[in-house]
Amino acid sequence: MSDSSLLQQLVDALRCLPGVGPKSAQRMVFYLLEHDRDAGRHLAGVLGEAMARIGHCRECRTLTEREVCTLCASPARDPALLCIVEQPSDIAAIEQATDYRGRYFVLGGRLSPLDGMGPEELGLELLGERLHSGLVREAILAISPTVEGSATAHYIHDLAAGSDVRITRIAHGVPLGGELELVDGGTLAHAFAGRTGF
Amino acid sequence: MSDSSLLQQLVDALRCLPGVGPKSAQRMVFYLLEHDRDAGRHLAGVLGEAMARIGHCRECRTLTEREVCTLCASPARDPALLCIVEQPSDIAAIEQATDYRGRYFVLGGRLSPLDGMGPEELGLELLGERLHSGLVREAILAISPTVEGSATAHYIHDLAAGSDVRITRIAHGVPLGGELELVDGGTLAHAFAGRTGF
Repeated sequence: MSDSSLLQQLVDALRCLPGVGPKSAQRMVFYLLEHDRDAGRHLAGVLGEAMARIGHCRECRTLTEREVCTLCASPARDPALLCIVEQPSDIAAIEQATDYRGRYFVLGGRLSPLDGMGPEELGLELLGERLHSGLVREAILAISPTVEGSATAHYIHDLAAGSDVRITRIAHGVPLGGELELVDGGTLAHAFAGRTGF
Repeated sequence: MSDSSLLQQLVDALRCLPGVGPKSAQRMVFYLLEHDRDAGRHLAGVLGEAMARIGHCRECRTLTEREVCTLCASPARDPALLCIVEQPSDIAAIEQATDYRGRYFVLGGRLSPLDGMGPEELGLELLGERLHSGLVREAILAISPTVEGSATAHYIHDLAAGSDVRITRIAHGVPLGGELELVDGGTLAHAFAGRTGF
């Protein structure tokens, strides 16, 4: 598309979106220009505003355009329950699937000093203050059971030492409805080792 | 994500893009906000500018931010050859795959009165002027061989009556490397009926 530098710029710019390659970027551009310029203009406006205004919640570090997100500000959420997740998207998943009514804390990653993810980057000092505030009764670790995730979980467990907080972690094992033969070996071994009474 | 109306607005706005559902829109939003805000800002800027500034070429009706697109303005392109296509994206496909060095004309659709696509919407008056200008030697129809595409082709054929323009159409048949058993029946029947000497 050498005939339109602006058009080509837009194709290139759309490729910053995960999962969008050159072909689908081109299809998006032609679709928006030919069929839905209003939607394109609206997207440009909302996108610019979101990039400028969305920051992190002062309390739980999730993404929000407010100083304190609505979940943290809601009096209906139990402050004695604190679910610790890696990413803001994990909150969306838990909210959609469970009836959890406590608060959250977003680490923004896992402990991985080689990648520059240390306790400071994960807000673990802030989390330590929360755990020792006397307000939290149970902290639920919803962290993926990888090597780094386990290290992060142990770090948080140590962080809570001396407080009255009960540390729990969500169950890891074979997914419901999962065919045993299709489950990866690591998960199956974990499920076996972690078997519970019937 | 009830905790951030702006975040949810952005997820909704991204769904205007073809092929983007709620899950991938959410993934795009979290990716941009957490990992690449610069790219998001850049995309917002280019998208807004493109929606505002990209219009149609006065000569060939393709999408461009100029009055006359670079292909029409280029002295290297033969004005005696005119390739007639349905969509601007068809030009990109032909430019990438062939060594065609003539000009283009973009209909923007096919004749389909029930859908409000009449000769006026397709710019057929402008095309008629081009065909009778004496500058065009051959007009190549690169229109899909559907019922409406064929009607459009016949209309253009009639439009050229009285001029010296030779009307040709690109070959339709079994794709190169296509397994016969996988080709749809219509294409195969068309290829049989349109067989050429060996």
